[in-house]
Amino acid sequence: MAQVTEKIVNGVNVTGLFETIETIKEKPEVGKYNFRATNKWIGGTENHTTVNDFYGACKTFSRKKPHVFVKDEPESLLGTDKGANPVEYLLAGLAGCVTTSIVCHAAAKGIKIHSIESKLEGDIDLQGLFQIDENVNPGYRGINISFKIKADATEKELEELVEIAKKVSPVANTISRPTPINMSLEK
Amino acid sequence: MAQVTEKIVNGVNVTGLFETIETIKEKPEVGKYNFRATNKWIGGTENHTTVNDFYGACKTFSRKKPHVFVKDEPESLLGTDKGANPVEYLLAGLAGCVTTSIVCHAAAKGIKIHSIESKLEGDIDLQGLFQIDENVNPGYRGINISFKIKADATEKELEELVEIAKKVSPVANTISRPTPINMSLEK
Repeated sequence: MAQVTEKIVNGVNVTGLFETIETIKEKPEVGKYNFRATNKWIGGTENHTTVNDFYGACKTFSRKKPHVFVKDEPESLLGTDKGANPVEYLLAGLAGCVTTSIVCHAAAKGIKIHSIESKLEGDIDLQGLFQIDENVNPGYRGINISFKIKADATEKELEELVEIAKKVSPVANTISRPTPINMSLEK
Repeated sequence: MAQVTEKIVNGVNVTGLFETIETIKEKPEVGKYNFRATNKWIGGTENHTTVNDFYGACKTFSRKKPHVFVKDEPESLLGTDKGANPVEYLLAGLAGCVTTSIVCHAAAKGIKIHSIESKLEGDIDLQGLFQIDENVNPGYRGINISFKIKADATEKELEELVEIAKKVSPVANTISRPTPINMSLEK
């Protein structure tokens, strides 16, 4: 029996990563994913989201256990702070996506990462949400992310990794491009 | 002493909501918020986000306890499924934001809501993330949300609530508008 040696860099299975990329190159339908969530209002500003199955690699995957998220508003925004609020969840998603993009691209290039920390922040003007001024965007005006990375790499290589992450991250592209949202009411 | 009677609809303090809106109308700087998160890479596709303080109503608020989020990828995407993945966090944020927008606008109109459930889904083509085809958007192509609402309201009123939520939700507007992301490397 031939022994398969897997190359692991930064905790990422680089052998598996390259195999996945090759498979999608040959059969693009393998790369077509569909992510899903269900949400339930609890009361006031509290609601819970459940994430379990998703479609990808031409089949549906179900997790052993679903992931559940509690969302609420802090007291100063009329809630009871049972969970972070929705605009903070968006920052969590963005932080995770660009970080994983950096880690995986570094792994693919053979760059060993020791640590990545980041800070995110963005301004929201509630005049938009409350329809006080129709010219005010209710969303984030912009989001700033600052990274602190320790790695066996030059500063130029790290800057390139951050640049690539911004270019390829699914969450970053969902936010930076005008992504259509379709909302409908079940009858 | 005068007794203050607070009007609560759908668990939302409508008296407080209207007071907040009036205050922001008089002093727009009260409505200027800044939301924040810090993120730490753990290993492989796992990273943790911490959300605690935020700025709003002209001061900085600190929570009693921070909210921490574990992000990971499922096994089929080279992770160990310790948490939902970043694109699923984005759905959780969107679900929460439009739900709270519906609940609060219904409360402001005096419409009693009994239940709100929603399903969200969106397609992502990994050819974008893996830079296999530069013409493929790495982000969600679009996101569909379907609501099931039970309320003391006509179908027309419910359709209007869904329409308003789409128009004013901060997360929905961050996604549907081209929101700039600025990424930098601390030196």
